[in-house]
Amino acid sequence: MNNVSLLLEKITDNTEVVGIIGLGYVGLPLAVGFAQAGVKVIGFDKSPEKVEKINRGDNYIKDIRDIVLREVVDNIKLQATTDFSRIKECDVLLICVPTPLDKFRKPDMSYIESACIAIGQNMKIGTFISLESTTYPTTTEDFMLPIIEHESGLKHGDDFWLAYSPERVDPGNANFHTKNTPKVLGAITKEGLEIGERIYAKAIDKIHLVSSPKVAEMVKILENTYRLVNISLINELALLSNKMGIDIWEVIEAAKTKPFGFQAFYPGPGIGGHCIPLDPFYLEHIAKKYDFDLSMIHAAGHINMRMPNYMSIKIATALNKHKKSVNGSKILFLGVAYKPNIDDARESPALHIMDLVIKKGGVVSYYDPYIPSVKTPEGNQLQSVRELLEEMKNSDCVVLATNHSFFNYAMIEEHSQLIVDLRNGFRMASKNIFKL
Amino acid sequence: MNNVSLLLEKITDNTEVVGIIGLGYVGLPLAVGFAQAGVKVIGFDKSPEKVEKINRGDNYIKDIRDIVLREVVDNIKLQATTDFSRIKECDVLLICVPTPLDKFRKPDMSYIESACIAIGQNMKIGTFISLESTTYPTTTEDFMLPIIEHESGLKHGDDFWLAYSPERVDPGNANFHTKNTPKVLGAITKEGLEIGERIYAKAIDKIHLVSSPKVAEMVKILENTYRLVNISLINELALLSNKMGIDIWEVIEAAKTKPFGFQAFYPGPGIGGHCIPLDPFYLEHIAKKYDFDLSMIHAAGHINMRMPNYMSIKIATALNKHKKSVNGSKILFLGVAYKPNIDDARESPALHIMDLVIKKGGVVSYYDPYIPSVKTPEGNQLQSVRELLEEMKNSDCVVLATNHSFFNYAMIEEHSQLIVDLRNGFRMASKNIFKL
Repeated sequence: MNNVSLLLEKITDNTEVVGIIGLGYVGLPLAVGFAQAGVKVIGFDKSPEKVEKINRGDNYIKDIRDIVLREVVDNIKLQATTDFSRIKECDVLLICVPTPLDKFRKPDMSYIESACIAIGQNMKIGTFISLESTTYPTTTEDFMLPIIEHESGLKHGDDFWLAYSPERVDPGNANFHTKNTPKVLGAITKEGLEIGERIYAKAIDKIHLVSSPKVAEMVKILENTYRLVNISLINELALLSNKMGIDIWEVIEAAKTKPFGFQAFYPGPGIGGHCIPLDPFYLEHIAKKYDFDLSMIHAAGHINMRMPNYMSIKIATALNKHKKSVNGSKILFLGVAYKPNIDDARESPALHIMDLVIKKGGVVSYYDPYIPSVKTPEGNQLQSVRELLEEMKNSDCVVLATNHSFFNYAMIEEHSQLIVDLRNGFRMASKNIFKL
Repeated sequence: MNNVSLLLEKITDNTEVVGIIGLGYVGLPLAVGFAQAGVKVIGFDKSPEKVEKINRGDNYIKDIRDIVLREVVDNIKLQATTDFSRIKECDVLLICVPTPLDKFRKPDMSYIESACIAIGQNMKIGTFISLESTTYPTTTEDFMLPIIEHESGLKHGDDFWLAYSPERVDPGNANFHTKNTPKVLGAITKEGLEIGERIYAKAIDKIHLVSSPKVAEMVKILENTYRLVNISLINELALLSNKMGIDIWEVIEAAKTKPFGFQAFYPGPGIGGHCIPLDPFYLEHIAKKYDFDLSMIHAAGHINMRMPNYMSIKIATALNKHKKSVNGSKILFLGVAYKPNIDDARESPALHIMDLVIKKGGVVSYYDPYIPSVKTPEGNQLQSVRELLEEMKNSDCVVLATNHSFFNYAMIEEHSQLIVDLRNGFRMASKNIFKL
């Protein structure tokens, strides 16, 4: 029996072991999904805290129900470990590590690289490997494959199979989660594609096969570039509308009545999270190799980067109307998560605006029960205030930066002297409410 | 009884006369819609040919059923005229004139201007006027209103009411036509808004009211700018994908499986028609007045303008693979309409590509039964060939420029030596089929 048949037989018998490398907001839900399907899962992460939490059944991802994690841990379907030598126990390895940009907005491939080295040094013959992290097209074949072959001495196609299947996790999405979001899969060989489809089908309802890893890589980039470009477009139109005395939010509501050919995006203080602000620049990176200039992404990135600065000017303008300077004024930010109802402030534009306001001498505080404390890009450390009402009354300006659904806008309006609303939470402008 | 009540009473009694100025693909369907609702309609157009056709019951708009036009003409619900003094018979005037760009990509406001002059010189007291043409925000209040008041000597708000309600006609759309596409309406006064809503409700299922004409003007620009930007984005990604050996059409099909946050756009040889390539530049025009640079529209316009040139290079590259030069080769274009299944070639990118190929010495012909003859921007006059099969066999290269649904791709493939497919009609690439 050859390696392919052996693995397929295990998959049929549900006796394969699935290793998930990286236990963040992508990897952990995926690990839980496979464990719920009755598959034995080993979760790998370099963080001892995360690993201990999981092995205790302590959930740290908002989109997973606590009871579900505890169940799969108690049933010993899911174990977590920091010991990457246990990769040799796995038949399947799904890589869910971060792919951030470095300070020069270049892809930081070190997480993928070290995952590939660990895999190459530890894996057994007959392993299926799939990358889920967003990256530039050609990564799987041109970057990962040589490392794994070199480290393992094994040969792709005979001894192991490599695939790419991008995660589509949308934190806080009430309708779509890991299981019911269709998954795109591209593999280097047709055996790899067959194995991958059979495996993923256990945890995910619908698998969409494509002809190569690089097609799948481009799919993810297209999805997020679409979002970056459209958010940037609406931000640019919001700034112009502002100058023209046009309420962009009213414009969007009306445009939404068009029953074809339109999808609504909303302006805001800039784009946060780990995907939309980053992914398009992965493409920009590889495009350079092909002497290609991506002007749309470039323009979109430019607008997005300027937004926090515009917002800090907006705050200064609003204070000025009340005859106050930023310097010495107390400014309270409501919400610092990068989008509503989530507990994640990474790349959040609110933090950039806070830095800019602090630089101008503003006395900044924030309220966000989902984010107990933050460190801004400039290194300012802040803790969420406890007494919202008190803090609001004492602030010269209240800035709605993230429209968590628990905010009581009538109450905020009643107790605030001045409001800068970056999210149309108040749905009106007035003498004391300035809208983006 | 004041002017408002008088007009509202007529509307209630269905005795108002509606004048439609401009009987093109927007005005004529609207005129027919009101006539079908039992309202007496006078259609105004400067073209005696159009007017005579309508009065004979001869339909020239593909989206109108011939029998419906004949019915409303026979019932004398719809009359057409070139005599703009009959504006005085109308209680309601809906302006559906073209708003093209001039050769320097500046708005050509002459059609709106001459409509306003004709209205001002002829209208009676108590008339409701609405502009439907796409234009830059502030046109209704700052451009039209002064002309009409000056020419008529009447006062807005007392003697007449002005509004803006953008047309959303999508030629060839099988699901949405004038009646069932919601209509956005903004007026200068609340009386104007009430009158406008009552009138439009007779011909259109759903009216969405906004707070001002300039909001409504921005709505239309947003809708079409969204399309321009996204088509340009996918065109740019298509060009890069091409270089990287990635099939962009396969990428889009896969991205479409994402059930949230994505809308598919398709690449093509450039953007045609009267809306998408033009409207965003109306906004660019007014933005200058506000010292504002619209970088997304600028980048998108740039890509779009370059597409025909890329396509002509693609044709040359394909011929080169067959060891042929463009110079002296016979090149047959299939489809020259600006989108599938319509009979309109205005601003069609195919015509630009034909010019570029002719310039290089190519011997160009085309086949499009919907467009019997064309004149290209460079003044080349061509007639659609009759014998498709013959022409295909004799051509060195066949270019699919518009994917009309009647094309039989298997047949075309069988009889063509070389195909350049700009629309993914053939859904494959091969030695003899080159895809965008």
